[in-house]
Amino acid sequence: MIQTEQLLHTLRKEFDNSAYGSNPDELYEPIRYIMSLNGKRFRPLLTLLGAGLYKDDLSRAVKPAMAVEIFHNFTLMHDDIMDNAPLRRGKPTVHEKWNANTAILSGDVMLIRAYDHLLDINPSQLRHVLARFNQTAAEVCEGQQLDMNFETRWDVTEGEYLEMIRLKTSVLLGFALELGAIIGEANPADAQLLYEAGESMGIGFQLKDDLLDVYGDPEKFGKQVGGDIISNKKTFLLIEALSKATGEIRTELNDWIARETFDKAEKVGAVRHIYDQLEIRRITEQKINDYFNQGFESLEKLNVAPERKEPLLQFVHQLVNREQ
Amino acid sequence: MIQTEQLLHTLRKEFDNSAYGSNPDELYEPIRYIMSLNGKRFRPLLTLLGAGLYKDDLSRAVKPAMAVEIFHNFTLMHDDIMDNAPLRRGKPTVHEKWNANTAILSGDVMLIRAYDHLLDINPSQLRHVLARFNQTAAEVCEGQQLDMNFETRWDVTEGEYLEMIRLKTSVLLGFALELGAIIGEANPADAQLLYEAGESMGIGFQLKDDLLDVYGDPEKFGKQVGGDIISNKKTFLLIEALSKATGEIRTELNDWIARETFDKAEKVGAVRHIYDQLEIRRITEQKINDYFNQGFESLEKLNVAPERKEPLLQFVHQLVNREQ
Repeated sequence: MIQTEQLLHTLRKEFDNSAYGSNPDELYEPIRYIMSLNGKRFRPLLTLLGAGLYKDDLSRAVKPAMAVEIFHNFTLMHDDIMDNAPLRRGKPTVHEKWNANTAILSGDVMLIRAYDHLLDINPSQLRHVLARFNQTAAEVCEGQQLDMNFETRWDVTEGEYLEMIRLKTSVLLGFALELGAIIGEANPADAQLLYEAGESMGIGFQLKDDLLDVYGDPEKFGKQVGGDIISNKKTFLLIEALSKATGEIRTELNDWIARETFDKAEKVGAVRHIYDQLEIRRITEQKINDYFNQGFESLEKLNVAPERKEPLLQFVHQLVNREQ
Repeated sequence: MIQTEQLLHTLRKEFDNSAYGSNPDELYEPIRYIMSLNGKRFRPLLTLLGAGLYKDDLSRAVKPAMAVEIFHNFTLMHDDIMDNAPLRRGKPTVHEKWNANTAILSGDVMLIRAYDHLLDINPSQLRHVLARFNQTAAEVCEGQQLDMNFETRWDVTEGEYLEMIRLKTSVLLGFALELGAIIGEANPADAQLLYEAGESMGIGFQLKDDLLDVYGDPEKFGKQVGGDIISNKKTFLLIEALSKATGEIRTELNDWIARETFDKAEKVGAVRHIYDQLEIRRITEQKINDYFNQGFESLEKLNVAPERKEPLLQFVHQLVNREQ
């Protein structure tokens, strides 16, 4: 039986021992910095757990799994420049600690290093894995571009939003699991099911993020509750509210969005009250459950003995139930 | 016999027919824009000419050759942000025409698309090609970082400068030729010789660029003669002059570098006169010849029939003799 904690330990050790390159130091130090910021490493873990469905020896899966995490952190480094974000996991972002040029160039090298880590793939599978990785990587960029486009639009539909988060965050979770399946030499149907499971769950996770920002327990939630409301971030909840609000409620919502000075707690309370009146919480929870159920259904259909599924199912249940 | 013009025509048609992706348009339009800016396409042509040393059918070499050009243009798009460059080939740079975020994200997708184009490589060679490409790509980034580091340093040595331009510009020319050799199934010794030829020639080309900026014929030189002098750009000539100038000449050179207001023509004339006194032109021309000769020596050693070498040699002679 695969020990999830043991796999995480292996991954953490590998990341701690990675230098990513040596010279010039100005290029590689920011990479070591962002990779050390206590990421949960759950993407590479999904790859290992995916491979573990089919294989016991996961040694050949470790580097490719790391590729997914390095790619993910590359997108964070570049997205943080574009989003002008000061903090990442509570620490200064790379473009803040150094500068934007450093974050651009070190990010570029990270993307190259991600490809490097994929070279541990069995040569007979390499072309297929790279084609799938390239598609996923381009889709993540497309999602980021859509996200930026949405910033200046007030007519984003629920469908457009779901497609944006699918591209920006979910396809990589799908790929992480699919990559494990490919390395484990699963049949193509299982690889596809694992991709779909990751994709559905990923949308669910993002919607849950959106929900917790408004309704999360401040004791458990890592960030400031209501941050998205304060910044008018176009989350699933806001998009739903904008599509449903009419009359006075609509006027009130528009007014809060337009105000340039306000008491933060008052705005959070007021917008949350609007969401309550429109039953946004119920609608969002329903949507989250739909996506999670879809994901579990895909996992159920896998051609794998039930006991072999346990480590992955257990881990996914943990992710689904997290409150922060 | 391979027709170089025919190969260029094939490449141009392929680039003209490439969309790089479709949706969202904001992401892919800047890629089509930079790829349409009349690049000379001599990197992918080197790949085709390299493959043509060993093979007549070059159809499988076209996409991988394009990968080299797409990668090159990716570096231009990101470098232009970092260098704050307003123009590229006489047209507004992507970050000027759109904005820096667009140039970052579209550049990222270009790098991914470059990898996509490498997938046409014979599966048995794919891993090797990718390992070589990854190394080359990372080295190009290292060169760009060194170049940026040098901006604030006045003690850059000749050796450091040569290593910087080797990384920033030459290794990709080496890889372009080596890639052709690999696709042509050349023996490893030939592939290495072609890499070395490209690497040496590339350093020669960059030094010649540096030289032409100061001593080029204004009628033939595409850019403003003296542009590097006006901006105190640390070229091979300036680094040589800084290492050789003493006494009054040194004082005069330092003075021109430090001046914030000056007549451009006067500064160009004065610094050129300093270079003349220090024999910088002769020293640079000698160095250029050394690198070009080294390159031709590598090409001579190739295990290829002389007549088969003609198209490549002819093209390289053209590059070596260009005056702009």
